[in-house]
Amino acid sequence: MYLLNGEKADHISIADRGLAYGDGLFETILVVDGRPVLWNEHLARLRMGCELLRIPYDVSGDSLLARLDELLAESKDMSCKCVLKIIVTRGAGGRGYALPEVQQPLEVLGLFAAPDIDSIQVYGGSVRTLKSQAVEYGSYAGLKHLNRLEQVLASIELDGRAFEGLMFDASGRLVEGTRTNIFLWDEGRIFTPTLARSGVKGVLRQYILNNATEWGLHIDEADIAQAKLKEIKGMALVNSVMGVIPVNQLDGKLLNIDCVIKELQEKVHQKIPF
Amino acid sequence: MYLLNGEKADHISIADRGLAYGDGLFETILVVDGRPVLWNEHLARLRMGCELLRIPYDVSGDSLLARLDELLAESKDMSCKCVLKIIVTRGAGGRGYALPEVQQPLEVLGLFAAPDIDSIQVYGGSVRTLKSQAVEYGSYAGLKHLNRLEQVLASIELDGRAFEGLMFDASGRLVEGTRTNIFLWDEGRIFTPTLARSGVKGVLRQYILNNATEWGLHIDEADIAQAKLKEIKGMALVNSVMGVIPVNQLDGKLLNIDCVIKELQEKVHQKIPF
Repeated sequence: MYLLNGEKADHISIADRGLAYGDGLFETILVVDGRPVLWNEHLARLRMGCELLRIPYDVSGDSLLARLDELLAESKDMSCKCVLKIIVTRGAGGRGYALPEVQQPLEVLGLFAAPDIDSIQVYGGSVRTLKSQAVEYGSYAGLKHLNRLEQVLASIELDGRAFEGLMFDASGRLVEGTRTNIFLWDEGRIFTPTLARSGVKGVLRQYILNNATEWGLHIDEADIAQAKLKEIKGMALVNSVMGVIPVNQLDGKLLNIDCVIKELQEKVHQKIPF
Repeated sequence: MYLLNGEKADHISIADRGLAYGDGLFETILVVDGRPVLWNEHLARLRMGCELLRIPYDVSGDSLLARLDELLAESKDMSCKCVLKIIVTRGAGGRGYALPEVQQPLEVLGLFAAPDIDSIQVYGGSVRTLKSQAVEYGSYAGLKHLNRLEQVLASIELDGRAFEGLMFDASGRLVEGTRTNIFLWDEGRIFTPTLARSGVKGVLRQYILNNATEWGLHIDEADIAQAKLKEIKGMALVNSVMGVIPVNQLDGKLLNIDCVIKELQEKVHQKIPF
């Protein structure tokens, strides 16, 4: 079951610009014991995306929470952890890219089972580098918009051969995983790709950057060349549904997960119930 | 009215990956007196896109023509010219980028009114350069996929201030218009952007490249720096719905439309009933 602008439905208009052009945004949010995790951060990113794409959708936390409660009440089979997906599109429009005279945004809410990653969180996940290039979006890089063929094609290339695949931009700089942001440790410092022109600026990535100093960790944003990965001693995959996942293998080479990456995981998971 | 896999409908499943990720392709095709124009070229591009995105949709010209006839019979208000839009998505899927175990592609057909461009074809249209950057898609550049935020944002910037807006890549090379490909004339030769990493490889653009020699025109694909536009003596916008449109003004500077660009238009419009 989904809620479309608050009404139960499982179909949307074919004329919706979300389908026609990917003209919209989404958030996937971990819900633990009925409460959305990193809620304000998700709302803030959605708000920023609507501003940048000029979608006149009023992001109301109260209204969304009420609708989440309605979904939870209807979905008895959802366990104490589940995932709320919010899609916001520009709504229906005619043929053609230009905006319709009146925009009537569409809000879609749905609940999904949370991924089962308990053992991956403890023992780590494997990672492979991919040839699928990260797209250079320029001015709207970083948004969690609905143009995600990039991730679909990278997932096809990964084909389940590892837990996650790494994507690089046309200049060979590390960008992100197919569904995660990346933190690296080279025995000196922790760093994460800059994401100025490509990638999704994940909510948990930003939360970590904002709080690292308080946790006694020094973390930099940096341009990371593919060759640099050979010097890496530790790596973490992060997203707001799975938390911090240590990487135990990079292209077949074993990585030690009992390092500062584990410390990063502990700091984050102490604050957020992943 | 639309046809969804041959059935009348006006809604699609919220779970469709076309909405979730723009995981699909489309074609917009001019229909004149009931016949689709550049039909084989559109089918070939759709077929190539399905292969590249690994969408197991069998592009059948006969089946599509039968469905077009059904739409035309239902749409008495469509005049002798209208536009057929075909959307093909990977179909419904769960949450997550990885492909569903069974892919059941969705085919959507709809008819729209043709744009009224008779006077623009004769007297030309105005063009402005835009700041909205063309996205660098890399391996799937050129496809007419559903990830089209790029064109939506460029259209917002253009805001109707000219008939068309020109987009450049991050290196400042001309890519395309928001809904057209570009041909330029510098009093020496005619050329069009290469589109190796960005842009949509339009069906009419390719038709022109394939036939230019036969028409006695020499046309090259080239990298065109933004500064080069100052030397331009003639310009044409082309797409498979509007045909060849001469440009009469570029950023306020008048361009002569009675030049080889007019000859290009005549050659194309002799063959195709734009």
